[in-house]
Amino acid sequence: MTFRQKHLLGIEPLHPTEITTLLDLADQYADLNRREQKHSDALSGLTQVNMFFENSTRTQASFELAGKRLGADVMNMAMQASSIKKGETLIDTAMTLNAMHPDLLVVRHPHSGAVDLLAQKVNCAVLNAGDGRHEHPTQALLDALTIRRSKGRLHRLNIAICGDIAHSRVARSNLILLGKMENRIRLVGPPTLVPAQFAEFGAEVYEDMREGLRDVDVVMMLRLQKERMDGGFIPSEREYYHRYGLDAEKLSYAKPDAIVMHPGPMNRGVEIDGEIADDINRSVIQEQVEMGVAVRMAAMDLLARNLHEARAKPRVMV
Amino acid sequence: MTFRQKHLLGIEPLHPTEITTLLDLADQYADLNRREQKHSDALSGLTQVNMFFENSTRTQASFELAGKRLGADVMNMAMQASSIKKGETLIDTAMTLNAMHPDLLVVRHPHSGAVDLLAQKVNCAVLNAGDGRHEHPTQALLDALTIRRSKGRLHRLNIAICGDIAHSRVARSNLILLGKMENRIRLVGPPTLVPAQFAEFGAEVYEDMREGLRDVDVVMMLRLQKERMDGGFIPSEREYYHRYGLDAEKLSYAKPDAIVMHPGPMNRGVEIDGEIADDINRSVIQEQVEMGVAVRMAAMDLLARNLHEARAKPRVMV
Amino acid sequence: MTFRQKHLLGIEPLHPTEITTLLDLADQYADLNRREQKHSDALSGLTQVNMFFENSTRTQASFELAGKRLGADVMNMAMQASSIKKGETLIDTAMTLNAMHPDLLVVRHPHSGAVDLLAQKVNCAVLNAGDGRHEHPTQALLDALTIRRSKGRLHRLNIAICGDIAHSRVARSNLILLGKMENRIRLVGPPTLVPAQFAEFGAEVYEDMREGLRDVDVVMMLRLQKERMDGGFIPSEREYYHRYGLDAEKLSYAKPDAIVMHPGPMNRGVEIDGEIADDINRSVIQEQVEMGVAVRMAAMDLLARNLHEARAKPRVMV
Repeated sequence: MTFRQKHLLGIEPLHPTEITTLLDLADQYADLNRREQKHSDALSGLTQVNMFFENSTRTQASFELAGKRLGADVMNMAMQASSIKKGETLIDTAMTLNAMHPDLLVVRHPHSGAVDLLAQKVNCAVLNAGDGRHEHPTQALLDALTIRRSKGRLHRLNIAICGDIAHSRVARSNLILLGKMENRIRLVGPPTLVPAQFAEFGAEVYEDMREGLRDVDVVMMLRLQKERMDGGFIPSEREYYHRYGLDAEKLSYAKPDAIVMHPGPMNRGVEIDGEIADDINRSVIQEQVEMGVAVRMAAMDLLARNLHEARAKPRVMV
Repeated sequence: MTFRQKHLLGIEPLHPTEITTLLDLADQYADLNRREQKHSDALSGLTQVNMFFENSTRTQASFELAGKRLGADVMNMAMQASSIKKGETLIDTAMTLNAMHPDLLVVRHPHSGAVDLLAQKVNCAVLNAGDGRHEHPTQALLDALTIRRSKGRLHRLNIAICGDIAHSRVARSNLILLGKMENRIRLVGPPTLVPAQFAEFGAEVYEDMREGLRDVDVVMMLRLQKERMDGGFIPSEREYYHRYGLDAEKLSYAKPDAIVMHPGPMNRGVEIDGEIADDINRSVIQEQVEMGVAVRMAAMDLLARNLHEARAKPRVMV
Repeated sequence: MTFRQKHLLGIEPLHPTEITTLLDLADQYADLNRREQKHSDALSGLTQVNMFFENSTRTQASFELAGKRLGADVMNMAMQASSIKKGETLIDTAMTLNAMHPDLLVVRHPHSGAVDLLAQKVNCAVLNAGDGRHEHPTQALLDALTIRRSKGRLHRLNIAICGDIAHSRVARSNLILLGKMENRIRLVGPPTLVPAQFAEFGAEVYEDMREGLRDVDVVMMLRLQKERMDGGFIPSEREYYHRYGLDAEKLSYAKPDAIVMHPGPMNRGVEIDGEIADDINRSVIQEQVEMGVAVRMAAMDLLARNLHEARAKPRVMV
């Protein structure tokens, strides 16, 4: 096995063979999820805790189902309304939880780097479910699995990531993963939403949507993150849709068999035309959600195995 | 087996023999729930998701316990605070969830018909846990089971449904179920709360409580749904209790062995006198709650069996 | 076995041998929780319901993990936003839940005595997770276990309970438990926060922190319960820390091997200096949290055994 991570904090530390190992296992879990009996005991006897400091029904649901289907004891902690209010620090909250001996800790936090910090303080495996504008590794992995299943490979593809790239940890994690796997990435969007520093990842930048989509294999749309645009330029939805919303006309510039992706939840008529989103010949949006559960099962399974090995060695008691 | 439904969206589509099949199985689950070990594996390996777009602690708790006791992986999704806020449509939310491969989806929604609409879009079995003023089938089924256990039969009974009928999906589902089973139904309440169109169900309408209760076998009180009375006439609680609240004097017009029902939560001193509610010789209100869990176990078990049969046939992949 | 309680409503009704029985079993569960496989089937097939009428993420999490690790079907009910709003009484809520046949009911309530009242109305075992200023028995038991593991015994120790004693059910339950086990207790704090009636428990009262800590084996700090100080004197945090906050200088008056405790969540720099809290040679604050899960497993296991025995005898049907 070639997956050596203790945590899944981001795509950045992963070796390409580790990504492949994880996606191969996720493929098996995708099969399991389509069966009548969708239960395994890979995490049986283990405790998974979901700590969401930021609301996210769909991501939390995906992790919760993943853990329950693997037989873990799963606990959700709604962090907004709780200890935070009582003035406890993030580290104290983490230390308290750690003392209850969880095995897997799934964390979403509004601040970039908060999940990394927390991982240094606990004895269990930590999965980043999105931290600020930093990383959202399971989203990038589920996108990768969806692409690989649709296109038959995950390398030497032309992939356009379109829209609000500046505020998107999804874009950032995808850019890193797809780059590692040797794809050609284009970033398409208005200059205010495509920051210059993303050039470091070797992506080409396009301001014009039609040029950016020309001959690509994959069109990856992003959600317009209005809630993260603090004080800056907010485009009108109508204007945005006219220039950057994906419709049939703009999509015609891509390859005839190009697939359309969106991480959800969608703003129909803002980032994407409703008919394109529902076109089962082009859109793989539902399969992205489906692969989300499978990828999270694979990630938790691999981390639990590594945790078990680490614990089998002599260790310092907590 | 004579239960052929794919979903449980309302009482309307059910054949009387299907109702009997479901109640017979619920009787067995009622026995199980009174045992020390109250666990079965009827739904083991299956995923149940509760989507409540309207708050209801007791109904959600009843479905949650029902699923857990049958061995399902149960997930609650608090829908108010989530995706809805982000502008996602009901259909997109349903499609997203569907992609995670649930087997049973329990839905409560404030709009009549929303659950039917949703059922058309998903691959799993859908249970309506109350939609607007339309239907609340598991409530009618648990009421039917409670009556059958108390009275020894579920036909040719005189049953008075009393109070705020206009705003009540509970009344509507009960009216349909009890009519199908050939009982004589009376609707008792002020004209503003008993809409004329309910005559179509063949019920007699009474404005006077004492006349309406004369010689009935079952007195079914309803909750005063103030939260649904938008703009219309709101009676004072004192006046309402005086004319339509169930007390010993009014109850004396019913048969000496008539039972008293209420779907809960009760407004004591508004719809019903506290002493009547607590009188274990007359009130079956606690047994209604108990039968609620049993009926929901039976409904989910039957739907899961049908789902399994449907899936055993060649099918289109999701 | 020498644990004869039907409920765990407080420390007051417990015999010292019952406390010892419970702590001995908790020691075993503490071992289980440190293993890779932390699952037992002591509560398998049973239903545990957590009803928290007051928010408490950490206590609820501790009970939830305890039940899940013992194989119970665990359900959390968020009581604030629900039936209460609809005007239902506490007793009706309890009766409703009771009709669903839970085996273990964990209750937190803002009013002293509310949990006792509720226990009289239901057929299951009730655990008090904190009621007003009355009792918080599992907290006192986890503190006792932590002390016993650190000090090797739970009797003839000098123990100082410091700070906001007046508003603290934690202090009250600890005072009773540690008194029963024949320790010498000191209460240390400003006169406004150490009410005279606590003298009845035979504790010595100190206004000066240094005098109060002199030669003690255990320093038990309390949380400043600002949310419960209605109208009364509220000390400034700076002044409070100066006089009663635990720092290295004040701690130097205690025995060299004295341990430091805090029930959490901590206000660092108010009740306790951050460095003391994190000093693994003195602070057992993390171990308190760890023992919390173990003590709750033991309590629920013992109550479930008694419930089973009671039910094995001929009984009146619900």
